[in-house]
Amino acid sequence: MLIGEQSWEFKRRPVILGTSSVVGPDEGKGPLGDQFDVVHEDTLIGQDSWEKAEKKMLEEAAELALKHANMPKEQLQFYVGGDLLNQIISNSFAVRTMQVPYLGIFGACSTSMEGLAIASMIVDSGFGERVMAGTCSHNCTAEKQFRYPTEYGSQKPPTAQYTVTGAGAAVLGLKGSGPVVTGATIGRVVDLGIKDPFNMGAAMAPAAVDTLTAHFRDFGREPGYYDLIVTGDLATVGYDIACDLLRERGLDMTQTVYQDCGKLIYDLEKQNVQAGGSGCGCSATVTYGPLLKRLRKGDLNRILVVATGALLSPLSFQQGESIPGIAHAVAIERGEVQNG
Amino acid sequence: MLIGEQSWEFKRRPVILGTSSVVGPDEGKGPLGDQFDVVHEDTLIGQDSWEKAEKKMLEEAAELALKHANMPKEQLQFYVGGDLLNQIISNSFAVRTMQVPYLGIFGACSTSMEGLAIASMIVDSGFGERVMAGTCSHNCTAEKQFRYPTEYGSQKPPTAQYTVTGAGAAVLGLKGSGPVVTGATIGRVVDLGIKDPFNMGAAMAPAAVDTLTAHFRDFGREPGYYDLIVTGDLATVGYDIACDLLRERGLDMTQTVYQDCGKLIYDLEKQNVQAGGSGCGCSATVTYGPLLKRLRKGDLNRILVVATGALLSPLSFQQGESIPGIAHAVAIERGEVQNG
Repeated sequence: MLIGEQSWEFKRRPVILGTSSVVGPDEGKGPLGDQFDVVHEDTLIGQDSWEKAEKKMLEEAAELALKHANMPKEQLQFYVGGDLLNQIISNSFAVRTMQVPYLGIFGACSTSMEGLAIASMIVDSGFGERVMAGTCSHNCTAEKQFRYPTEYGSQKPPTAQYTVTGAGAAVLGLKGSGPVVTGATIGRVVDLGIKDPFNMGAAMAPAAVDTLTAHFRDFGREPGYYDLIVTGDLATVGYDIACDLLRERGLDMTQTVYQDCGKLIYDLEKQNVQAGGSGCGCSATVTYGPLLKRLRKGDLNRILVVATGALLSPLSFQQGESIPGIAHAVAIERGEVQNG
Repeated sequence: MLIGEQSWEFKRRPVILGTSSVVGPDEGKGPLGDQFDVVHEDTLIGQDSWEKAEKKMLEEAAELALKHANMPKEQLQFYVGGDLLNQIISNSFAVRTMQVPYLGIFGACSTSMEGLAIASMIVDSGFGERVMAGTCSHNCTAEKQFRYPTEYGSQKPPTAQYTVTGAGAAVLGLKGSGPVVTGATIGRVVDLGIKDPFNMGAAMAPAAVDTLTAHFRDFGREPGYYDLIVTGDLATVGYDIACDLLRERGLDMTQTVYQDCGKLIYDLEKQNVQAGGSGCGCSATVTYGPLLKRLRKGDLNRILVVATGALLSPLSFQQGESIPGIAHAVAIERGEVQNG
């Protein structure tokens, strides 16, 4: 049900029956490397194009999430997902393989939690019993589509971010055991006029703060309600801006409580990733891999994932538009076996 | 609630409180021209790019739908929408103006009914009380993005379709008077291997038939339950294929019952639009304009809109992929004043 102005409370607590995280070589070399389900050794993973590799990773993630949920693929009722590629082809072509009713979505890198929020609503409200949310991104497909031909090896400013090669998926249901989705906050478009596509973190930080503020207001919660709050892919530049903006609003959060998936996924000292990770796959693989592992172990009890997206296109940038940001937040808590 | 395998029944019957249809000059000259709310005389409508014109039309449509619903814009709680442009910029930038929590979606030309289905679910399940679904397309932005630079004036085969310049929006709520949304069927991706991007109708027809078949099965209905069934934008080629496929499945529908928005919106004899209209704006403007006018007048009592989408991108085509199709169906019925 609607709670407050822009949030959803999932009273029936949809269970995350299974998740998966499939990543590429750079993510495998990062500090979370051993906590992903699959680490590919190269970026083509046996395909003849990076786009096909991205689609293939999502297919693997979908299969693996179903396996972890112990659910035959014929039982899956709906799939909700999207990605960064024009016309979200990675998802549409992966879903062609899966043969399941499909809701395509787009929220740039916020797609991960937009999908989890919609999937949770479907399950919570009885519009579906077994629903998957999935997303993916690929460093090389994003580079060639959004920036320069990959072969150029163009130099980047330190504020730039490195698109994560990875796919993540989650299978939701009402019965079973696993972490539960308890709420979501749907973000508004926030645009403070940033026009530099090599500084996405700065463009997205205000949206993350807007959604976080709305979340605490709508649910009547303090940041301390959660053991961990992560933004999707603000990376170092955006993270610092978000911390400043949060402090201005009286929401002072320490590094123990507030982190960012774009900072967690790479070794920022040793890996050449500028300010850190980005892409739909960033928050998806970190959440559906390492973070949910910690929830399942009881190392964490309540987390809030605030996936952030920059809603630009190369064309909107070329036409002089600034970069609108958006962020969607989903609360996940340690669950007991329910309805069992 | 879920009904059958892939359909949703909206038991609380969300009311369509207001709709709008804004179109360009070619659509104004078509047989439905006098039934749209706004007809623009040129394709730039005072903007300096076609993309900005497309966004502007959607902003107009959103404003007008709110006006028709007699709802101040501050009361709107969620917006669900998408379009054909890369990274759905028309919607994201229009929503920046609207300042409302936003779920971006993408289903190519099926986006219109995907949005209406999700918005109806939000209202029906109590996750929002006042929700808008919107979409748009523009002939010139689609031409330059998907085909050739507009200035080329390249020749087209007769199977090609003409992207509608138009935007449509609907405001949903629980209380009030107006047509009601009673159900939806979410489509699967269907791909019979068509590879010709100048024959989208053929690529989408099997998906339309798959969704129609699923709809009748899930709700236990015959085609005769509806006064009118329209597909989104199969145009003449796709329409004839759909009729053949439906006949094979024992669903013989006469032209009185089954029509196609892509055929209705233009005068196919006199206007140079090849097989007929396409684009997200096609089913949106025809449904939210002329068709709902007929429902409100009592000329129609029950309609089923099956919006069809071709999930390709120029890149997927260049990489040799075939064109996956999808279709989402929404049932709209004449409503009484309710919960009043």
